[in-house]
Amino acid sequence: MAKKKQKKRTQNYKKQIGQVPGALIYTGNKLDNKLHLHAFDYSDEEYKEADLPTVEDAFNFKDSETVTWFNLNGLNFIDQIEKIGQHYNLHPLILEDIVNTSQRPKIDEYNDYFFIVLKMMYYDESETIVSEQVSMVMGKNYVLTFQEAEGDVFDGLRERIRHKKGRIRGEGSDYLLYALIDAIVDHYYAIIETMGNKIEDLEDELFTGLTQEEISQQIQNLKREILKIRRAIFPLREIINRLEKSEGSLIDEKTTHYFRDVYDHVIQVTENIDIYREMIWSLMDMYMTTISNKMNEVMKVLTIMATIFIPLTFIAGVYGMNFKNMPELDSQDGYYIVWAVMIVIFIGMIVYFKRKKWL
Amino acid sequence: MAKKKQKKRTQNYKKQIGQVPGALIYTGNKLDNKLHLHAFDYSDEEYKEADLPTVEDAFNFKDSETVTWFNLNGLNFIDQIEKIGQHYNLHPLILEDIVNTSQRPKIDEYNDYFFIVLKMMYYDESETIVSEQVSMVMGKNYVLTFQEAEGDVFDGLRERIRHKKGRIRGEGSDYLLYALIDAIVDHYYAIIETMGNKIEDLEDELFTGLTQEEISQQIQNLKREILKIRRAIFPLREIINRLEKSEGSLIDEKTTHYFRDVYDHVIQVTENIDIYREMIWSLMDMYMTTISNKMNEVMKVLTIMATIFIPLTFIAGVYGMNFKNMPELDSQDGYYIVWAVMIVIFIGMIVYFKRKKWL
Amino acid sequence: MAKKKQKKRTQNYKKQIGQVPGALIYTGNKLDNKLHLHAFDYSDEEYKEADLPTVEDAFNFKDSETVTWFNLNGLNFIDQIEKIGQHYNLHPLILEDIVNTSQRPKIDEYNDYFFIVLKMMYYDESETIVSEQVSMVMGKNYVLTFQEAEGDVFDGLRERIRHKKGRIRGEGSDYLLYALIDAIVDHYYAIIETMGNKIEDLEDELFTGLTQEEISQQIQNLKREILKIRRAIFPLREIINRLEKSEGSLIDEKTTHYFRDVYDHVIQVTENIDIYREMIWSLMDMYMTTISNKMNEVMKVLTIMATIFIPLTFIAGVYGMNFKNMPELDSQDGYYIVWAVMIVIFIGMIVYFKRKKWL
Amino acid sequence: MAKKKQKKRTQNYKKQIGQVPGALIYTGNKLDNKLHLHAFDYSDEEYKEADLPTVEDAFNFKDSETVTWFNLNGLNFIDQIEKIGQHYNLHPLILEDIVNTSQRPKIDEYNDYFFIVLKMMYYDESETIVSEQVSMVMGKNYVLTFQEAEGDVFDGLRERIRHKKGRIRGEGSDYLLYALIDAIVDHYYAIIETMGNKIEDLEDELFTGLTQEEISQQIQNLKREILKIRRAIFPLREIINRLEKSEGSLIDEKTTHYFRDVYDHVIQVTENIDIYREMIWSLMDMYMTTISNKMNEVMKVLTIMATIFIPLTFIAGVYGMNFKNMPELDSQDGYYIVWAVMIVIFIGMIVYFKRKKWL
Amino acid sequence: MAKKKQKKRTQNYKKQIGQVPGALIYTGNKLDNKLHLHAFDYSDEEYKEADLPTVEDAFNFKDSETVTWFNLNGLNFIDQIEKIGQHYNLHPLILEDIVNTSQRPKIDEYNDYFFIVLKMMYYDESETIVSEQVSMVMGKNYVLTFQEAEGDVFDGLRERIRHKKGRIRGEGSDYLLYALIDAIVDHYYAIIETMGNKIEDLEDELFTGLTQEEISQQIQNLKREILKIRRAIFPLREIINRLEKSEGSLIDEKTTHYFRDVYDHVIQVTENIDIYREMIWSLMDMYMTTISNKMNEVMKVLTIMATIFIPLTFIAGVYGMNFKNMPELDSQDGYYIVWAVMIVIFIGMIVYFKRKKWL
Repeated sequence: MAKKKQKKRTQNYKKQIGQVPGALIYTGNKLDNKLHLHAFDYSDEEYKEADLPTVEDAFNFKDSETVTWFNLNGLNFIDQIEKIGQHYNLHPLILEDIVNTSQRPKIDEYNDYFFIVLKMMYYDESETIVSEQVSMVMGKNYVLTFQEAEGDVFDGLRERIRHKKGRIRGEGSDYLLYALIDAIVDHYYAIIETMGNKIEDLEDELFTGLTQEEISQQIQNLKREILKIRRAIFPLREIINRLEKSEGSLIDEKTTHYFRDVYDHVIQVTENIDIYREMIWSLMDMYMTTISNKMNEVMKVLTIMATIFIPLTFIAGVYGMNFKNMPELDSQDGYYIVWAVMIVIFIGMIVYFKRKKWL
Repeated sequence: MAKKKQKKRTQNYKKQIGQVPGALIYTGNKLDNKLHLHAFDYSDEEYKEADLPTVEDAFNFKDSETVTWFNLNGLNFIDQIEKIGQHYNLHPLILEDIVNTSQRPKIDEYNDYFFIVLKMMYYDESETIVSEQVSMVMGKNYVLTFQEAEGDVFDGLRERIRHKKGRIRGEGSDYLLYALIDAIVDHYYAIIETMGNKIEDLEDELFTGLTQEEISQQIQNLKREILKIRRAIFPLREIINRLEKSEGSLIDEKTTHYFRDVYDHVIQVTENIDIYREMIWSLMDMYMTTISNKMNEVMKVLTIMATIFIPLTFIAGVYGMNFKNMPELDSQDGYYIVWAVMIVIFIGMIVYFKRKKWL
Repeated sequence: MAKKKQKKRTQNYKKQIGQVPGALIYTGNKLDNKLHLHAFDYSDEEYKEADLPTVEDAFNFKDSETVTWFNLNGLNFIDQIEKIGQHYNLHPLILEDIVNTSQRPKIDEYNDYFFIVLKMMYYDESETIVSEQVSMVMGKNYVLTFQEAEGDVFDGLRERIRHKKGRIRGEGSDYLLYALIDAIVDHYYAIIETMGNKIEDLEDELFTGLTQEEISQQIQNLKREILKIRRAIFPLREIINRLEKSEGSLIDEKTTHYFRDVYDHVIQVTENIDIYREMIWSLMDMYMTTISNKMNEVMKVLTIMATIFIPLTFIAGVYGMNFKNMPELDSQDGYYIVWAVMIVIFIGMIVYFKRKKWL
Repeated sequence: MAKKKQKKRTQNYKKQIGQVPGALIYTGNKLDNKLHLHAFDYSDEEYKEADLPTVEDAFNFKDSETVTWFNLNGLNFIDQIEKIGQHYNLHPLILEDIVNTSQRPKIDEYNDYFFIVLKMMYYDESETIVSEQVSMVMGKNYVLTFQEAEGDVFDGLRERIRHKKGRIRGEGSDYLLYALIDAIVDHYYAIIETMGNKIEDLEDELFTGLTQEEISQQIQNLKREILKIRRAIFPLREIINRLEKSEGSLIDEKTTHYFRDVYDHVIQVTENIDIYREMIWSLMDMYMTTISNKMNEVMKVLTIMATIFIPLTFIAGVYGMNFKNMPELDSQDGYYIVWAVMIVIFIGMIVYFKRKKWL
Repeated sequence: MAKKKQKKRTQNYKKQIGQVPGALIYTGNKLDNKLHLHAFDYSDEEYKEADLPTVEDAFNFKDSETVTWFNLNGLNFIDQIEKIGQHYNLHPLILEDIVNTSQRPKIDEYNDYFFIVLKMMYYDESETIVSEQVSMVMGKNYVLTFQEAEGDVFDGLRERIRHKKGRIRGEGSDYLLYALIDAIVDHYYAIIETMGNKIEDLEDELFTGLTQEEISQQIQNLKREILKIRRAIFPLREIINRLEKSEGSLIDEKTTHYFRDVYDHVIQVTENIDIYREMIWSLMDMYMTTISNKMNEVMKVLTIMATIFIPLTFIAGVYGMNFKNMPELDSQDGYYIVWAVMIVIFIGMIVYFKRKKWL
């Protein structure tokens, strides 16, 4: 199934080739979504919340003094997104990036707004990492967020706005942007926790149940998931850094400490990923060692059996020969002497192997 | 065939040794091409397009206010290229670089124009990566492009000029340069898509049909192709960066956002290449593991067979001895007792191996 | 047991998700500690020391000219920590970081104080590395330290304050901060010493007693411990660097040389860790070589035994055939000739192996 | 022979120990060379060329307005080199570096001249890389070059001066310096071409003629040659960079473009070396895979033979026993039944192996 | 013995823990040395040299205009060193660093002097690298050097001062510092020469005399020695760089060229070390290849012997069966036909192996 997805992604690239730059083509695969528009408008004193039937309803918010968070679900409604773009005066390249879901996380600074692309990540019920693109435009009094489908990581944040928890209602749109990024980064912790558990489970299974193909497969999967997370998280460091150090008036100096805090979280997640990476490599090493140890044990048994019985069988072969004149054969004790010799050889071998620590 | 090509490339180096610097020597291998000159001249209102019989026909365009895109196919027509160089006042080293097709992608900034060398890449019908050099000179109102042979990646762009699609007709020569680079970078996506498919195919074949020599060969080929693409793409980051940050008046600030966009694409392609690289290494690891697993299985079968039958054969050998005095041989049940002993040993061995998980 | 711990740590992450930023949640696992507040207040002439029953008792110290070191044990007393935060005017994010014991070592510069998080490390009696978080707030005349539990590395420092050893009593709070960091770094030396001994012990055991599983396990453990120490120490370089280069008036220029000195110690510890890391890799190499050497030896014995006796057994087999007409069998010396041939073959084999250096 | 050379080089180091810094000791091994002094003096209109009997003859050139290129062969004539040093006012350390042929390529900037040390490299007739040190002093109107022995890579350049080819006669000493460096770098192309061919040859031989020792040896040699070239070329990047960016009046801005061009060549050579490096590593991988593949094949044959015949031989052994009471032996069809059983076992084995894909 | 040393070093760390910073504790192990004080005082015209009975005798030199080089042997005489520190106004941390012999090479810049710690290295008679710490304080007219024991690398330098060789007598204390560092760096050449010889010797022995354990041990030793040298030399680059770029008046601009020269030497040594490092890795590769080649050869012999004789032995076994009714046995030519069949099989096998290139 992971492979299927891969193939879809690479096909997305192709669609772009030969297109006019700035052309809006939705490259995701969730085409049957219905449009869902949701708006928050709040200040310290009051807050409004509404599901909007059309994007035009959102335009009134733009010039209010209060902070507006406008969220759009459904990137296949390209004409609606274009309307928003015109109203909020967004650069055509931004609109293109919003609907192109194979973007790399990035930040673009424009004169009167920031444009930020992030990857929201979570494990779905089949334990596969799902990565969904969230685009954000943050201006003087508003934050616009664009998502591919229903369901996101912002519900806690919405509750805090509704019930005036924490300091969100008293702060501006820069704090809202921080809170959105913080919610996304918080979920990375859940990802690396699950990943950590997976690695520990695999570690336990290394010496027990699984076949070599299964283990090899699982290690490959873990390596790929780590690659995927790294790609989503690494650019975040630069993004937050540039927000923190932006010189315009969009980010209040007071909020800088909060961005610094998310930055520390990102570094921590990054370090954990690197540690997991090294643990996976260690796992592979241990696994290879285990295999070669087993091989060794098998070889030893073969060697011991063969080495002990090969000369004995030879002796038996000798006295199985049919020569007329074989004096030993006629001797009364010949048979017993041969047995004695064979037992001596046998014991000698065992002692030799014991001394070599092969037994 | 890849090897043939390699050899030709290295010979090209030799030709240069001892040459006067700035001497024009075509180092490609497409000597039988005919010269093809093509010019676009356009502004927002109007556009002209013409196949030109001689380079002199192109000279009129130079001083027009409209944007001119002059394209030359056939780098073996050195005298014609020299004429263009004189007319457009190009530095001798630029002319040398245009006809030397083993250039590394680069940018040279001169007083009144940029000189850019890029690699146009595509898979040919035999699934081999073809890399063709495109040199570009971008001045105030013109872009000159020099290609080795017919056939390029700019047809979509030509259509956009002809039919006034997108914003190209309303912009200057800097936007044209952007559109040219963008077209080349767009094709890198096709390359990495094909490469991704190749890797996935190989992954599937790893456990099935192919012999070890074939797999080893294919992995080597993929590694080489990735090396080739990396060499073409990596310098692009610096090239676009310098275009974006150039201080002259050649690049309009408005166009900077577009270059930023191509830059993001280049980064994305670069990241994908690095991921494919790691996937190939993983493939090799899995492949080596598979081999050693098979080896293990083979060894186990040998060990089990040998270990079981070696002592049994020894027993049979003992009672094949021809001693006169061997009481067991005369016993009525001797034969059956020996069989019983051998069966007990056999079953004991099987149980032992089962417990060791070798069976 | 290491695994248990790991699991607890990753669970801590989860608790954070969805929390209001700045919320105080103790993430450690030492919930049954009792609160212990201790204060030093000293100048060159006099010193006071007291166990304080409530945090409010500590507030008088804040505005005194003398240097105050206030230490709190027991991070689960969140309300007490909040009171201190209010009194000393600490940013909410600082309080959050103090009680969140999975912080990465870091420094945050605020207007009138530094906030520093470090990891105190020591081996416990079961030879496991224990890492405990110490948070420090250093202001004009005071240093606040927050620890999870009783028992720390600062006893030597306390003695020096009490008995006026060294220059500590004559210096300001910046020197106290230095002395605290220095005490922590000094203990890293003990860690790397124990680690060095462990590596040497393992080196000795490589060729003697341990089984391959034990060795493999120990190498894995050492690699993990080194990872753990690296994570604690690496950020220290930047922390001390920023203290040294801070531009405010909090750090006296005179104290800079002392921070430089700790910096050198940190570099030294870092280098030792890297050396140990390389030694562990060398160990693994040697260990793998040892295994393959043993394997080789086993194979050689098998080969020699089999190669010598296989042709001999064949010969014996030939003359064990029951053909009526086998002239050799009737010959008087047949048996002796066969023995002679077999001995010649045997000796020939031995000579051949000797020459091949397999014996 | 390569080893001999190595030993000589390391001995050279020893001679230096304990010497006064600035002492002139020739550390090469070409002591029997005779001194050869050669001078070019040219301007756009005229040129003079002469073999000079003594260094004093060269002194007249110093103050002429025309460009002078003075070349000295024979670094063992230390007193002559000292005379030149005094006349041209060279720093004692420069003279020491000229005669010490184990220098690393470098550039030293002095007030009125540059001092540059380069390595001239070519394959000799026995396909070994020869590396000869060339020191250059470039001042206002002159370039001095110092070589160890006759024979260099500058003949093409000499012809261009003599016959006024290219722009050399019209330019200053900075262009002459460029032309000298360019000639040296051009020869690196020949080196890497030969190296490329060697690698390709080895690739072909991998599966055919050579023994494992020979292949292993050749791979080691190639790795060493690449190390050698890397050492010679890598410092060149910084050297040319500093020439290009030098702020004095010695390098005309016009010439900067030419240095940029050599810089690009150096980068290209560097990249090729890195590619060859990776190719050699790939070769080693393929070679190791080939070995383990062969091993596998050998093992399979052994396993198949042994596994098939071991049970059959056991059966034959059973009926070779001499028990009095063995009913099967007396049965009329016993022999044929045993054959049938053995054939069934044989075919069963073959089918089993076929299914396992071992055959 | 190397292990003994290691253990002593790590114990040194422990002694420091809990100490007052700035406390003087000699951490070396040469406690029975007697104190040896030696002073040079020289200018261009005259020079004095004396063994001083007490450190107080050295104090007169401090304010003279002539250059003074004061050398102390015996770091266990802590009180004497403290006296010097007081007289020359040295920072307590410097004194601590002088007697702590496990310092990393470093430079500390103070207002009126530099403090430099270096490692003097040489091979002792048992071919072990000895590393001794040399601390230097360089002020306006003096250089103080502190050594652990008698015997150093400065004898050549002393001779040059005595006999006015080179330019040392005419220069200031900065040139003396340069000459001291140069003498130490010169000895690194001897180290790497010996190391180079060791590697070459090991390379020769790889295919001849030594057992695998010995080779493995020697490779480990070489790797450790290289680690040790790297640690001593790498910091030197920064040290010399900072001396060269120091802005105070202590280093004359004229002397900068000399420091540049030592810098080049250090780079050269560093490069050689890196080459040796890669050579050792190559050695290990070759060694592993050799082992697996031998293994292969052993396996091949076993396979060939077994594969040839297993079917033959089976045939002999068949006709050793005792069935009453075996028509072949009664045939007159049966025995000869069986021989013929066996010979045909034998030759067929040989031919098969020849074709497979296993023979």
